[in-house]
Parts: sequence; C-alpha cells; structure tokens
Amino acid sequence: MKYRVLIDANDEKGLVYKVSSVFVNHGLNMVSNSEFVDNESNKFFMRSIVDGDVNKEQLAQDVLNVLPKNSSVKILEPKKKNIIIMATKELHALGDILIRHEAGELEANILAVVSNYDTLEPFVSKFDIPYITISHEGLERAEHETKVIEAINSFEDVDYIVLAKYMRILTPRFVEEFSDKIINIHHSFLPAFIGANPYKQAYDRGVKIIGATAHFVNNNLDEGPIIAQDVIHVDHAYSWRDMQRSGRDVEKVVLSRALKLALEDRIFVYANRTVIF
Amino acid sequence: MKYRVLIDANDEKGLVYKVSSVFVNHGLNMVSNSEFVDNESNKFFMRSIVDGDVNKEQLAQDVLNVLPKNSSVKILEPKKKNIIIMATKELHALGDILIRHEAGELEANILAVVSNYDTLEPFVSKFDIPYITISHEGLERAEHETKVIEAINSFEDVDYIVLAKYMRILTPRFVEEFSDKIINIHHSFLPAFIGANPYKQAYDRGVKIIGATAHFVNNNLDEGPIIAQDVIHVDHAYSWRDMQRSGRDVEKVVLSRALKLALEDRIFVYANRTVIF
Amino acid sequence: MKYRVLIDANDEKGLVYKVSSVFVNHGLNMVSNSEFVDNESNKFFMRSIVDGDVNKEQLAQDVLNVLPKNSSVKILEPKKKNIIIMATKELHALGDILIRHEAGELEANILAVVSNYDTLEPFVSKFDIPYITISHEGLERAEHETKVIEAINSFEDVDYIVLAKYMRILTPRFVEEFSDKIINIHHSFLPAFIGANPYKQAYDRGVKIIGATAHFVNNNLDEGPIIAQDVIHVDHAYSWRDMQRSGRDVEKVVLSRALKLALEDRIFVYANRTVIF
Amino acid sequence: MKYRVLIDANDEKGLVYKVSSVFVNHGLNMVSNSEFVDNESNKFFMRSIVDGDVNKEQLAQDVLNVLPKNSSVKILEPKKKNIIIMATKELHALGDILIRHEAGELEANILAVVSNYDTLEPFVSKFDIPYITISHEGLERAEHETKVIEAINSFEDVDYIVLAKYMRILTPRFVEEFSDKIINIHHSFLPAFIGANPYKQAYDRGVKIIGATAHFVNNNLDEGPIIAQDVIHVDHAYSWRDMQRSGRDVEKVVLSRALKLALEDRIFVYANRTVIF
Repeated sequence: MKYRVLIDANDEKGLVYKVSSVFVNHGLNMVSNSEFVDNESNKFFMRSIVDGDVNKEQLAQDVLNVLPKNSSVKILEPKKKNIIIMATKELHALGDILIRHEAGELEANILAVVSNYDTLEPFVSKFDIPYITISHEGLERAEHETKVIEAINSFEDVDYIVLAKYMRILTPRFVEEFSDKIINIHHSFLPAFIGANPYKQAYDRGVKIIGATAHFVNNNLDEGPIIAQDVIHVDHAYSWRDMQRSGRDVEKVVLSRALKLALEDRIFVYANRTVIF
Repeated sequence: MKYRVLIDANDEKGLVYKVSSVFVNHGLNMVSNSEFVDNESNKFFMRSIVDGDVNKEQLAQDVLNVLPKNSSVKILEPKKKNIIIMATKELHALGDILIRHEAGELEANILAVVSNYDTLEPFVSKFDIPYITISHEGLERAEHETKVIEAINSFEDVDYIVLAKYMRILTPRFVEEFSDKIINIHHSFLPAFIGANPYKQAYDRGVKIIGATAHFVNNNLDEGPIIAQDVIHVDHAYSWRDMQRSGRDVEKVVLSRALKLALEDRIFVYANRTVIF
Repeated sequence: MKYRVLIDANDEKGLVYKVSSVFVNHGLNMVSNSEFVDNESNKFFMRSIVDGDVNKEQLAQDVLNVLPKNSSVKILEPKKKNIIIMATKELHALGDILIRHEAGELEANILAVVSNYDTLEPFVSKFDIPYITISHEGLERAEHETKVIEAINSFEDVDYIVLAKYMRILTPRFVEEFSDKIINIHHSFLPAFIGANPYKQAYDRGVKIIGATAHFVNNNLDEGPIIAQDVIHVDHAYSWRDMQRSGRDVEKVVLSRALKLALEDRIFVYANRTVIF
Repeated sequence: MKYRVLIDANDEKGLVYKVSSVFVNHGLNMVSNSEFVDNESNKFFMRSIVDGDVNKEQLAQDVLNVLPKNSSVKILEPKKKNIIIMATKELHALGDILIRHEAGELEANILAVVSNYDTLEPFVSKFDIPYITISHEGLERAEHETKVIEAINSFEDVDYIVLAKYMRILTPRFVEEFSDKIINIHHSFLPAFIGANPYKQAYDRGVKIIGATAHFVNNNLDEGPIIAQDVIHVDHAYSWRDMQRSGRDVEKVVLSRALKLALEDRIFVYANRTVIF
C-alpha cells in the first residue's frame, strides 16, 4: 500500500540519505520523491510516496530520529478528506467543485455547503449534499459567525473549508478556529486589488490582464499564503462586468486546482509562502 | 498611398456613417477599420487605414466638420518615428530593441541611447548609435535631470522616449517636458509591487506568477496608462534573483510590444487607460 | 431593441459607408461594429449591433441592395438558441455546459442530451433535461446513426448539436443532415494528433504542451473549421493518463467558449476557417 | 566546489538511498536534487548538485558500483560549453542568443556562426565572433554539407550546434556526425506542420494558436526529442506573414530556453523524449 511521507525540517547535510535509509530499513520502496531546500531560511521539505507494509507510528518515529530537532513528519495514507464549502450567491466555483466531485476527480467527501443565502440551495440539493443557510440579516457579524462556526463544528473531522466565492469578511476568531484549513479564491491577481470589487478596481486601473488567486486565509484580509494563481488577457473593450464574467472561468479553475493540491497533501506552508510538490 | 486616420470624439449616433462618407467623398478606400465606443464615458475612438490620394489638411478638416465639438483627428502617413532610449546597466530590454531595429522590425530611427552609466556603451557603439553618458554622481536630482533634458532636446522631433530599464525616478518636470511621449517598462504586474525591487517584493509575497507592465509615464510613479502586460509562472524554487532573471524575458517582450504599438499609431489614451487597435 | 446584423460579401470600396447609410436611413444607432476584410480571398465580413425599431425583412433587403451580388445578410434578435448535447461517458465537458446553463451564462435551451451509454443519465436527470440513450451495441453504424438522427429530428428548430466528448465517428450522412450545426471538442491541439487517443499520441511524441480544439464538423474527421483552441504545459512526469486528466480542464473551457461564440452569433465560416468577432 | 551529477539507470528499489550514501561517504553535501522514475519504461533519472571536494573519477566509479548494470553516470563541473550557431538569413533567433551571451546569461563560448549566406555577417562581426559563409550555390547537397562539417570540425570540443533558423535540411550523415549535439528551432507547434513553411500551413488550416518547438535533431525531419515548446494566440486577422512575424518572438524565446537547459546539463534524452530537471 502507498503512503505519503511529508517532512519539514531545518536543513542539514545528508537529510535525503538519512531519510531514505530509514525507508530502506523499513523495507519500503520510494515510488516518487520531491525535495526542496530554501537556502534563505535554511528549511528542508520532502514529500515521498513509499510503497510497502507501513507501521505509521514506528516509521514516523524512526524518521524523526534522523532529523534535526523541531522537525515535522507526517505519514498519510491516501484517503478522502472531509470538506465544507462556503458560498454566497455565485454558482460557478461551487458548481465546478461539485462536477469534479461527481466525476470522481476529488479525494473528498463534501459534508455540506454553508451559505448566507438560500440562492444556491436548489442547485446543491440536486447532488444530495446538505445545504445550510445561515442568513446574516439582522445579526451582528459576531453572532452570525458564531452560528456558522457551530454549523461547521456540528460535523466531525473537517479537513478543509473551501470559500467558493463566500462574500463575507471572516474575523480573526473564525480564522483561528480553523487555522490552516481555510482555502479562499480571491478574484484578482493578488496582491493587486485587495478588498472589495477587484474587477472594478482592475477596470479603473486599465489593466490588460486579470487574474485569480487561491490562498490559505490568515488574519490579514487577502494576505495569506498563495497556493495557485492564473490570469487571462483582457482589452479596452471589456467593461468591468465583462471582466467579472470572464474572470469567473479563471476563478473556478484556480480554486479547483488549489483544492486538489490540498487534498493530495502537496502543499507545505511556511513564512507566508507555499512549497508545492 | 496609405494613411492612418485616428479619431477621438464624444460619441453620437451615425459617426461611422459620417466619417466613412467623408472618405468616400475624398475617393478613398477604407482598407481596414477599428472602432470602439466606451459607453461609460461616451467616448468614440476610430482608427482607419485609407488608401488613395490624400490631401491631409483638407481631409482632417472635412472629418472634423462631421464630428461633435472637441473632437480630435490625426492623419498620419506611415513613417519612421524618432526615439531615444534611456537605460542604466541592464542589457536585455535595450538589446531586444536594437536587434529588432537591426532586423527592420521597427518603424523607428534610434537617435541615441542616454544612460547614467557608461556600462552599455561598448555594446551600443557596435550599432553606430550615439551613446550619451550623463552620470548622476555628485549631482542633485534636478541638476542631473536638467542635463538629461538638454541632451534629449539637442535632437529634433523626438517622438518617443523609451525607458528600457532606466532605474532612476523621473520628476514631474521631466514628465511634463515630454508629456505623453515616455514609455516605461515596470518589472512587475502593475499595480502589484509599485516601487523599488518588485521581484523582491513578489518573492516575499510568495506569488506564483510574475509579470511586466509597459506604460506611459505620468506624474505618479508607476501609475500611468498601461499599454501591455504579460506574465510567467514561477514556483517555490525561484529565489528573487531567479525571478529577476526569468522576468527579464517578459520585460523585454512586453516593452518591445508596447513600442511597436506606439510606432504604428495604435494607441489612444484617455482617463488613464489605453484603447489599442 | 438591439439586433445583430451579420454581413458576408465580396469586398468592394465603400461597403462600410453603404451599410452604415442604410442604418442611418432606418433611424438605427450602430451600438458596436466589427469588420474584417480578407485580402487574399477578397471577402468582407461585418457584425453590427444596431439599436432601434427594426423591420427585419425591409432592413435585410435594403442592406442587400447596397452590397455586391451573392452577399449574405442576417438580422438576428438576441434569443435563446436550441441545442442538443451529445456525450458518451465523460462528465466534465457536459457538466461545464450544464453548470453555465444553470448559472444563466448561455443564451440556450438545452433540448436533450443524447448518448450511446446511460452512464451520464443520473447526472443529467438532476437538471430536468431529457436524456436519450441510444446504445450502439449490436447495431451497424448506419443503423445506430439513423436512430440518433431520428431522435434529434424529433425536436424542432435545433440550432446547434454540441459534441461534448461524443466518442463515435460520425458519417457523412450525419454531417450533411446537420450541416454547419455540429460543434465538436477534439482533445488535441489540431491538426496535431488527429484520430484516436490523442493524449497517447502526444505522450508518445514527448510533447511539452497539450491542447484542445473546438471546431465545426465537416466530412473529414477532425478537419472542420476551428473555432477556439487552448493549451496547457506538461512535462516529463506526465503519463498519458495524467495528460488526459489535465487535458479535461482545457477541453471543457474551450468547448464552452466556442459554444458561447456560436450562441452570440459571433462566428463566420468560410474556406474552412472562421472569422470571430 | 559544486558539481552536477547526472544518473541514468534502470530503476530498482533504493537507488536514492544508494546514491546518496555514496555522496555521504565522499563527504559531499547534496545541495539540490531531482529524480524521476518512468514507470512505463522502468527508467530512473537523477540530477544532483553536490558541494565539496570531488574526485571525479572515483566518485563516478563509486556511484556506478551501486547502480544496476548498463547505467550511466556523469560528473560535470559547471563550465562554459562550446557552441557553434548555424543560421541562414533571419536575425531574430541568432540575435537573441548573441544578446544573452553579451549579457553573460549563457554558460557558453560561441566559437562561430556558420551560414549558407553572408547576410548576417555584418551583424555577427560586431560581436567579434567568427562568421563562416559556406554558400550552397552550385553545390550538391552532399558537397555543401561536407564543407560545413569540415568547418565545424576545424574547432575543437564542440558541445552543441544550435540551428537558429538554419533553413536547409540536414542529411543523416550530418546528424550522425554530431549525434545528440544538434538543437533546432522548428517554427511550429510540433508535430503539427512538419516540413516547409509551417506558418503558411497553419494559416491554411485556420488555427487560433501558433507555436514553436526546440528539439534535438535526429534522422527524421522534425521528429527528434522535444526540449521546449511555447505558443501564442492568433486570430482571423493574421495573414500568414503576420503569423510569421509574431511567431519569431516565440521562436527566439523557445530556442534560447532550450539552449540554456542544455548548457546547464538539465536534459536527459531517452525513447525520443526528454526529461528536464
């Protein structure tokens, strides 16, 4: 059976040798392997696929023993992760994920879709996925968020929360509650056009390219570690609404790409950046 | 003989009909034609190539007569424009322009290269193009700029000043002196990473795409009307110096593209944006 | 009310003037306009959006009267076109169209999905769209195709037949029956890799880029007029199955883009090529 | 000092461990490392940068000893490779290489430019690079090629021959003489449009994207292992000459990219494909 081994350590001489010797001692075949050393921060990252009979705890311990202090090792068997999708009124990004899920492309169980509107309920219910509407009307931001957090926490083992054009700002409390688990799609080429209505901002600036950015969410709005970005060319004939329409095609592709990377355990995060194998 | 007719007017009903009727009255064939109406600002732009015997002044007057007040008409015969290139120490963007010039790709006479260093002189002198070094050492910014302005103004009929990685900030005086004539390449996907060392900024932000932006220069640093942009994908393995190296390939392509558009009279500027036919 | 005027004529002097004068005489405002002259074949193409009270037959006649012989004029009001989608077992391209339809992005009524397998029926039936399975098992190609043609012809006014990864070869009879109405997505960058399993062919050739091509279908397999193409970069680590997986993202985007162009009457076909405004 | 270690072997369990243990025994630090296993052909490729005191012959022998039979090991110190550029009349691809060379971007000595015309001599001579004209006029193909081979062989230690738009077909004799050393730029997205005037072919086919392909040359015209490819979008308004003009920008970028990969020893060739680290 195949396992994913993820290593995050301070760099020192001979790490590949040391880790691969542990694999050999465990009788494991290294099917594929990626390493990266960030010389600036002296960090070492490694993602190996190993094949064989794995005793996860023993293997993790033996790998840890050959690494410098303060290293991290994860041994993961490929299995479906549990995700919750949050959306507001737009269908495209959510729809793309549901279609991929339906086509068997995603290593994921979609536990629920949570929205502040019921707009997308008829669509989502076609797929036998629970749709939870938590209206923000008449509620303080904190109250509303408490309800959303409760709704999410009513599910067990949530691995990722995917913001598929969820158009409300999250407070630090929410971000801390689900630290490192929230993936957002921002509809601009970050760090350009942080904040509201980036297509309008892009139009006003007269850009010739627009983009979309998938990133983990941290406490600073639109400033978390970037996972994936892509762009399309536009010209003077695009109104900002045209940019918005065309931009949706990039948004959905970039968000789905980022989600797949997360589900396949291909992302390391450090220093507000990502290493992606 | 073929002429370029450039029209910039407030939009009203029937402009294409009115303008094309003037062409017909002058016995001209409209070889190709592009129009654009910006509904938001109610502006009409048109670029036609007309073929035939043209009396430039009479044609311009007759076209003006059918247009709303405050319109602009230019009748241009294709001819080489006069350009001055400014550079500092980097070769790639300047070199790309010189090669294209050598290959006959550009409708331009290169009058001179002006630099604050003599680094590129041996290279430029191979091409029999005057190289003018105006060192900024020991000079106030205003003094240095005065000398640069004098050097440029020693040439007649300068159509465009191309900043091919000229790494000094221009003052408002310079920008006003050569209003609408200065084309710059900024080594980022504007408006991301305005200012110094954008590749370092991009690296620190952990972006997955870097870009370059060619734009006209106005008084606000890196905020003039954008002419052309392009990007390349990068990943975690790129140091900022790697980004800088790879970015050069985008910079040179984007600057040369913008320059060609300018030389072929394909750019209209309004409201800090460009219409490009 | 806004109408689309599509003109296809042999080129001669003054066509824009003549056509625009007819618009003026009808009291119409030309909201936007695109023209193209193919000098090689001396063909003139024009697509205008005109606004006003339109008498379609009179306008078409008056425009025809100012055009050379053998010209074509179409006056179309924007309205939903009727499409039938054909598929086999793959979900992604079909799914992308259904999601866009659901989101209101397409000017189309989806009359039915026709397939030679029932694989996609559970998915399609979620959307209240008729799903017609016509198995090819045990049937001669001609027999099977007769049944498919009958199924399609049981619907009235079918504007386009969209082959969303329909994996059977169509005979000339089928193509003639629905001449100029069939849009196909081919999973390669045509004309590279015509025929079966283009991803395997691309892998064997060791390419660094794979693509997809949407085109009208004519009698020569994969040789009809191209509407849209796009590509993605791959590397040595991609097996042909990886290429197939990644290629799906391009296929669906390119097919949907081509379909939108067709629905918005933006495509002219001539000499096995397309003009797209 | 840093060395490049290139390994090409049949795959078997534990190769990374075995190779890295040799590095450890030699007291070397593995600065960076890339591996790839092609499961289909059971081939293992590895490129490591090692830092330390290297005894090249001993290290190569010790690595070989831990690898399966019929493996290949190369230990290379980074140093300038010797290249000869062949061209015909077009400046852009040759010019781009010379500019990069001038800017210090290439790990190469350019020994000479060989051409069948003297067209480019004035340009090349600016750079103090020998220009050798060997006209094909009045000569049989074999005679002409003999002279070219002699000219190339008058230089010692030629690492690569770069065909920068050399527009003559090479015979098998030439290809064998410089086996695995010839890099060509083909002005199409191979395998589309093999042979003469690919832009004309592309135009006639009505494609919406054109490309360029850099590849090693083998005995079958345009069918050698592909190193790099890229594309640009075109539309109906492009004549084939416009495609040719625009295509030049892709050609030069793709050829220079392939050349850099070769100079940095990043390319493995097998089974008519390349692995690129």
